[in-house]
Amino acid sequence: MKIAILGAGGLGKAAAQIIAQKTQMQLVAVADAGGFVFNPTGIDANELQNVKVGGSVSQMQGGQRSSDAIGEIINLKDEYDGVFLALPNLPNEFIPCVVQRFVEGGFQGALVDALKRTRAMEMIFDLDGLLQDNKCTFLSGCGATPGLLTAAAALAAQSFVKVEKVHIWWGVGIARWDDYKATIREDIAHLPGWDVDSAKALSDAEVEEVLGQSDGKLTLYNMEHADDVMLERAGVCERDQVTVGGVMDTRNAKKPVSTTMTLTGITFDGQRSEHKFILGDETTMAANVCGTALGYLHRAQWLHQRGVYGVFGSAEMMPLTVK
Amino acid sequence: MKIAILGAGGLGKAAAQIIAQKTQMQLVAVADAGGFVFNPTGIDANELQNVKVGGSVSQMQGGQRSSDAIGEIINLKDEYDGVFLALPNLPNEFIPCVVQRFVEGGFQGALVDALKRTRAMEMIFDLDGLLQDNKCTFLSGCGATPGLLTAAAALAAQSFVKVEKVHIWWGVGIARWDDYKATIREDIAHLPGWDVDSAKALSDAEVEEVLGQSDGKLTLYNMEHADDVMLERAGVCERDQVTVGGVMDTRNAKKPVSTTMTLTGITFDGQRSEHKFILGDETTMAANVCGTALGYLHRAQWLHQRGVYGVFGSAEMMPLTVK
Repeated sequence: MKIAILGAGGLGKAAAQIIAQKTQMQLVAVADAGGFVFNPTGIDANELQNVKVGGSVSQMQGGQRSSDAIGEIINLKDEYDGVFLALPNLPNEFIPCVVQRFVEGGFQGALVDALKRTRAMEMIFDLDGLLQDNKCTFLSGCGATPGLLTAAAALAAQSFVKVEKVHIWWGVGIARWDDYKATIREDIAHLPGWDVDSAKALSDAEVEEVLGQSDGKLTLYNMEHADDVMLERAGVCERDQVTVGGVMDTRNAKKPVSTTMTLTGITFDGQRSEHKFILGDETTMAANVCGTALGYLHRAQWLHQRGVYGVFGSAEMMPLTVK
Repeated sequence: MKIAILGAGGLGKAAAQIIAQKTQMQLVAVADAGGFVFNPTGIDANELQNVKVGGSVSQMQGGQRSSDAIGEIINLKDEYDGVFLALPNLPNEFIPCVVQRFVEGGFQGALVDALKRTRAMEMIFDLDGLLQDNKCTFLSGCGATPGLLTAAAALAAQSFVKVEKVHIWWGVGIARWDDYKATIREDIAHLPGWDVDSAKALSDAEVEEVLGQSDGKLTLYNMEHADDVMLERAGVCERDQVTVGGVMDTRNAKKPVSTTMTLTGITFDGQRSEHKFILGDETTMAANVCGTALGYLHRAQWLHQRGVYGVFGSAEMMPLTVK
């Protein structure tokens, strides 16, 4: 499976590193804000890794500067089977618009994103008809949460006739926040008093200042996370029964808490109980997001090959392991 | 979705109770060794619940005695969309043969089993071509383990580039073992010195005697469980990296240990870690097996409606919640 990645931040680079360790996938194209690189025989993940923060993949061997790198990738649509949208989604309509461009540009294949916000995902789901008509298969919300943990909730729900609550509480530790500049701003946008626009407008120094107020830790409650709409769509529960929050430590690679999905429900015989899915602390956000996204990209291709088109959430599908 | 259940033991009865709490499914046919009952407007789950151990569904209102109840259900093939095979699988070839009868009898729809043994599942997978040719969709190993926990392992694997180990350790507590006569014999068959034939040949008094030797508890290590072949088929790991064992208390409804799936792997950045999926102690074997099986039956119908036929393991698919 030949892959294009949009976005060369921490997630795009990690996805490239994972693909380099797989035989069933090959990375052939990467785009970022400054340009793109295309190589039909495979892009060197280590060279990509060495592109500095603030640099561009256009500086890589064979890279080209472009003010519309996404358009350039769309023009190469016959050169790959699947696309991982590892773009920061600020503003909300950005990724939905990119998807629309791919479809209208004639791409017929598999796509995944690692979207987080409910409103953005609703825009993606609105594209279902368009993608069906144009023979594309899009799996949305395929990161860690939404993604791995949302799917675990959909699985855990099977033991119950009624789901009362899904609670996702994540811990993320990153040694250097500036590897994840866009992600951190997305997280700041969830803090009281902030929104997507005000967070996006922050300078790096201002981000440092916000982080400094809490010893580098961001604790977020009741985040607007698309796990809610995805679990509702999958028939697991109502969206207001889903809560997402967590703690991000931007100064320490060790997770401040273990990422845990807890589903509470009532069994057919009237018992209230909880199933838990707990991620190992040594697994990074990059491993949990990108490994999952590539597994879902493989599944999207599987569905596409069988003529199943449209938009689905990760809570509706099992990722397909990539060897 | 109209459902037929084969087998009216603990699992068949629990499945009927669950279906009675759903609006998307209706139970229309049940078969057991003594006969069958068919009602196109729905079978009363409570009447089924009241069929005593040693009795038969043929004693229910509208029930009929038959020496080939499965054949009778196959003759009714246009009256239902999905079949849950809740039969004891002794000997190994029993369920595979039943599946073959359904297909050769002209049934075109969705089927699931809650099979446990590797050798039986391999026989099921051998039917893939036959089911594809005859437009049937069969999901196999859709109970708790294999099933819920195997799918959790396939999901957990996404964070890792290499899976080293999948360890499933279950706890089951049942207040009265004679509600699960066949299941207990299947478990005894896993003990050192026993096999499927010798376990099946035990009288109830002899089963009591075996259980009495360990205060009613059966502790099983390295069980032949199809989780191994299912995870291998799903590309998660080699079969010898999967171990299954657990403790069954036949005299206490409380679980002696919490059922846990632990997957150990190496991330793309070289970290060894473990993800865990832990079932709530209050969830019974019946809830975890039958809820999951019905979710997979719904998924099997979803696949069938989209023209995806053949045999798949539960580690390859996400169950679809039944409302």
